[in-house]
Amino acid sequence: MAKKPGIPKGTRDFSPVELAKRNYIFDTIKKHFQVFGFQPIETPSFENSDTLMGKYGDEGDRLIFKILNSGDYLRKANEADLTAKDSTKVAAQISEKALRYDLTVPFARYVVMHQNEIDFPFKRFQIQPVWRADRPQKGRFREFFQCDADVVGSKSLWQEVEFVQLYDAVFNDLGVEGVTVKMNNRKILSGIAEVIGAQDKLIDFTVALDKLDKIGEDGVKKEMLEKGIAESAIEKVQPLFNFTGTNTEKLDKLKDLLAASETGMKGVEELAFIIAAIENLGLQQAKLDIDVTLARGLNYYTGAIFEVAAPDTVKIGSIGGGGRYDDLTGIFGLKDISGVGISFGLDRIFLVLEELNLFPETVNNNLDVLFINFGENEALASFKLMQQLRKAGYKADMYPDAAKPAKQFKYADKRGIPNVITIGSQELADETFTLKNMKSGEQNTYKFNEILSIF
Amino acid sequence: MAKKPGIPKGTRDFSPVELAKRNYIFDTIKKHFQVFGFQPIETPSFENSDTLMGKYGDEGDRLIFKILNSGDYLRKANEADLTAKDSTKVAAQISEKALRYDLTVPFARYVVMHQNEIDFPFKRFQIQPVWRADRPQKGRFREFFQCDADVVGSKSLWQEVEFVQLYDAVFNDLGVEGVTVKMNNRKILSGIAEVIGAQDKLIDFTVALDKLDKIGEDGVKKEMLEKGIAESAIEKVQPLFNFTGTNTEKLDKLKDLLAASETGMKGVEELAFIIAAIENLGLQQAKLDIDVTLARGLNYYTGAIFEVAAPDTVKIGSIGGGGRYDDLTGIFGLKDISGVGISFGLDRIFLVLEELNLFPETVNNNLDVLFINFGENEALASFKLMQQLRKAGYKADMYPDAAKPAKQFKYADKRGIPNVITIGSQELADETFTLKNMKSGEQNTYKFNEILSIF
Repeated sequence: MAKKPGIPKGTRDFSPVELAKRNYIFDTIKKHFQVFGFQPIETPSFENSDTLMGKYGDEGDRLIFKILNSGDYLRKANEADLTAKDSTKVAAQISEKALRYDLTVPFARYVVMHQNEIDFPFKRFQIQPVWRADRPQKGRFREFFQCDADVVGSKSLWQEVEFVQLYDAVFNDLGVEGVTVKMNNRKILSGIAEVIGAQDKLIDFTVALDKLDKIGEDGVKKEMLEKGIAESAIEKVQPLFNFTGTNTEKLDKLKDLLAASETGMKGVEELAFIIAAIENLGLQQAKLDIDVTLARGLNYYTGAIFEVAAPDTVKIGSIGGGGRYDDLTGIFGLKDISGVGISFGLDRIFLVLEELNLFPETVNNNLDVLFINFGENEALASFKLMQQLRKAGYKADMYPDAAKPAKQFKYADKRGIPNVITIGSQELADETFTLKNMKSGEQNTYKFNEILSIF
Repeated sequence: MAKKPGIPKGTRDFSPVELAKRNYIFDTIKKHFQVFGFQPIETPSFENSDTLMGKYGDEGDRLIFKILNSGDYLRKANEADLTAKDSTKVAAQISEKALRYDLTVPFARYVVMHQNEIDFPFKRFQIQPVWRADRPQKGRFREFFQCDADVVGSKSLWQEVEFVQLYDAVFNDLGVEGVTVKMNNRKILSGIAEVIGAQDKLIDFTVALDKLDKIGEDGVKKEMLEKGIAESAIEKVQPLFNFTGTNTEKLDKLKDLLAASETGMKGVEELAFIIAAIENLGLQQAKLDIDVTLARGLNYYTGAIFEVAAPDTVKIGSIGGGGRYDDLTGIFGLKDISGVGISFGLDRIFLVLEELNLFPETVNNNLDVLFINFGENEALASFKLMQQLRKAGYKADMYPDAAKPAKQFKYADKRGIPNVITIGSQELADETFTLKNMKSGEQNTYKFNEILSIF
């Protein structure tokens, strides 16, 4: 007997119900991407290995799925390396392609390859799966979709303004209330590093500071000292331990704190521009909040840093993020192309909508009406009506076999089909059909030629 | 200097313009799939190797892309096999996952795995990429999308009727005139094999017969003889050399020819049912035509066989096909689940629409209006108007930098943006904007509060 089939760990099948919900999210985001002037691109699922390797650090390199060369792939492998079972060296000899690890590096590669066809500034979005050989765990998959929007070719801060609006528009449309768009700026973090006198302690500093709510000022300071940050340095950034108030108040505190750092003040100025524009333009639902502990993408972001927090009632953390990077395409030899981009965390947004019960009731309406099959002649009459409904855009179907009506009704019921039409022998003779509303149980009989007028 | 980046052979980047056209095709097909009651599923990009291997023949096994195990994958490899450089044996030891080769086997695996959640009959569609290590050539790729619709769990011939209607609906909607849906039946082919007395010569027979138009009756007969089909056998199927006329006339000829073959007559009966239903229901554009040389999927189809021919004016061959298979899920241990399905050849359909110039002019309208940027205050005013347009669903954008207006207009022109709005300092003072139609060159000035009423 055949073995019961399975799928690789960390991967998923998506059923029609799950896909209907996922597509609702995808379609909503896509709509706003396009309304905001972003255009879609797609890149191949696998890239040449040298496009990906070395771009995500050693850990990233390990997590990249490598594709075995076709044919007699061992022929060219080095015999000594094979005998030594040197997996790393041999991998480079027997695999020259690898699955996409994120959408950012392929996008950079795309921009460089197609630079002569692209009209800059170029606003692109991309929604495609990526693959990572991570240890699968709850909410973390080996195949998952990323959803990115980026602009390349301009340093204008209006783009940052627009990304705040875009997050607001999407989450407002999805009905998610209480979303916070947190912003920071890499230059502010550099300024803080200058003030504490230790660039290399920046991460330790922000990680500790981020725990203020949980372990209190004393706890944070204790941790900072343990990490080797000098007491005198901690004193200098005392205002960050009481970093509350409006965004304007926070900006004032940062101006005081970073007065001596040219870079830091540039960061404050950039953030101030964005905050002022958003205050002027208004947001529909989201709250914009300066958060100096935000340090994501510290290694590549050079300006704005974004992170979106789910509503407080949902314990799920970040549902989106991004930032500005001044040298996206440099890795492929094209210098001085500034970019800024954001992403949406699709799997987590799914969980938020599920938890807050925000999927529209109609999201899984996969069929408007099912015709019951009473045999060849009745079925032909059903097909004639069904053809009219389908041409008018209704989702209509007939049960393919003339099974017992009870079985067919049960099928309609299990699938949650709202309307059922029966054409039995008497109805066929009368040129009528009976329409049953499956929810109310109400049923009425109509003439064949009334089919379009009653829907 | 960094090497100029490329992509693996046989793969493609899709630009916004190409994607707009592709999505137009995808969306049209999807709409009709749903109207016909099909529901989407998605399966992982890679499957366990034992799910795929051995399902597509030896050649298929060779063309499947295998994924290298993560970590120290060589550790468990057999040393003798490594030393012998036995690529095939080692592959099974260092790779346990493989990229999807088609959508049919994953679908069968899906049905078996989820049989207890599925309400049968189950109509599913699936549009996802597949990967094959084929030698790339014009129009053949290593990564390409397949687009399948199948029903499992019923033997009803109404499903075959419906697939003919579905092809007709899709190509009618895409504006492709002159499409022919060719049909045959595996049982008719079996009947012919009985008549010629050689089941194993069936392919040779149909391949030769298919050349009737090109090499004439004598040429075909010569080829059949060369392939070892007896002259007496060829005489028995003489009616197939003059197999013209209406479908009804063709059915009559088949009834005569296959009278002695029970299987053959069953095939004729099935085909007759479908032909009669379609004649009764009518088609919008497509022509339905019996073609006894149609022998695709001979190894797995058990009933109906479909193939869609592009209009004669486009030399491109088949743009779709499918058939009925009585034992789809048997390979995974679930017996007696009959299925019938069709697919659309997306890349070829793209070429047909391109060649016949059938993409709507609006397909690449990626932006409705661009605001010219005249500096910070004017830009803020532009953003306020833009916000209103975007909320109303228009695709609107502002050039991010206050570059020279000529440069900004040139950008709008190159991208084919139909409308440009300018708010200069005078207009800002007057609370007005100027709207320029980029095609006609016409321009008019309006008050800020008229923005929504003029679009």
